[in-house]
Amino acid sequence: MDVYGAIKERRSIRRFEKREIPDDAVGRLIEALLWAPSAGNLQSRKFYFVKDAALKRRLASEALGQRFMEDAPIVMVACADEKSAAKRYGQRGAGLYCVQDASISVMCLMLAARELGIGSVWVGAFNEEGVSRVLGLPAGLRPVAIVPMGFPAESPKAPKRVSPEEAVIFL
Amino acid sequence: MDVYGAIKERRSIRRFEKREIPDDAVGRLIEALLWAPSAGNLQSRKFYFVKDAALKRRLASEALGQRFMEDAPIVMVACADEKSAAKRYGQRGAGLYCVQDASISVMCLMLAARELGIGSVWVGAFNEEGVSRVLGLPAGLRPVAIVPMGFPAESPKAPKRVSPEEAVIFL
Repeated sequence: MDVYGAIKERRSIRRFEKREIPDDAVGRLIEALLWAPSAGNLQSRKFYFVKDAALKRRLASEALGQRFMEDAPIVMVACADEKSAAKRYGQRGAGLYCVQDASISVMCLMLAARELGIGSVWVGAFNEEGVSRVLGLPAGLRPVAIVPMGFPAESPKAPKRVSPEEAVIFL
Repeated sequence: MDVYGAIKERRSIRRFEKREIPDDAVGRLIEALLWAPSAGNLQSRKFYFVKDAALKRRLASEALGQRFMEDAPIVMVACADEKSAAKRYGQRGAGLYCVQDASISVMCLMLAARELGIGSVWVGAFNEEGVSRVLGLPAGLRPVAIVPMGFPAESPKAPKRVSPEEAVIFL
């Protein structure tokens, strides 16, 4: 699948088939996470792949009770490594760069997933402290996105996008 | 070009050929920006495509004097629309979601660019107030990434990545 097609055809998937994601696909998704660029190539980010049912349930509870997450075979939590980024880049590293680095990894994963026929959705509404507690995150790791994923059991329509004229300014 | 290949073969490009990026390619890059997902589909982001030589020079000055930027035919500045995100999501919207939304748009653009043979690089080290002044940004738009782009005049080696074991935790 070409890049442009994956970008345009990716949808947010919230209903999943029961089957697992094969290990080789998981390996490829991990490669996609790792190969996203990062500030100073510090790669100030960690990724939690949660398969445990009880943990998925607790994560859903910390995410406004979005129960659909429990049905995803994998719930991935992307974390910004503030400590690593701060060491080289101070507050700008901890407050911005590592958040961006973890986030763009997620984007790469979502596109690589689309190519493999795997659906995913970005969940941003969650209690950071609660998620940190559920995962037992060490201090300095900040969860910045939760991504339930699995084979799609729905094919939603594309939500509308703004026009280029609304979003782009030429100077 | 497949998604996985684009992710793994994308490099940060800081030397550019003199030729312009054709308009149809620019159109495709803009589509890539627009089709990235966003919190609540609010699309709280704006993109400045700077071709003006004097403005590029001033942007480079606000980015620690990274002069190579001036040789890129286009310097794109991605901005988070804090006002739009805050309206629906309050502080979490303004401080996190719109920064992520603008950032993952940039990731989509970089991969779509790679597919078109266009090189780019993420510049994060810049003075936000200075860049806002140069572009005349309205209040509430925060520049979060500068992306010089053009046809590559170099083919740098891939910087090393951490191993999956260092970055991924299974639970």
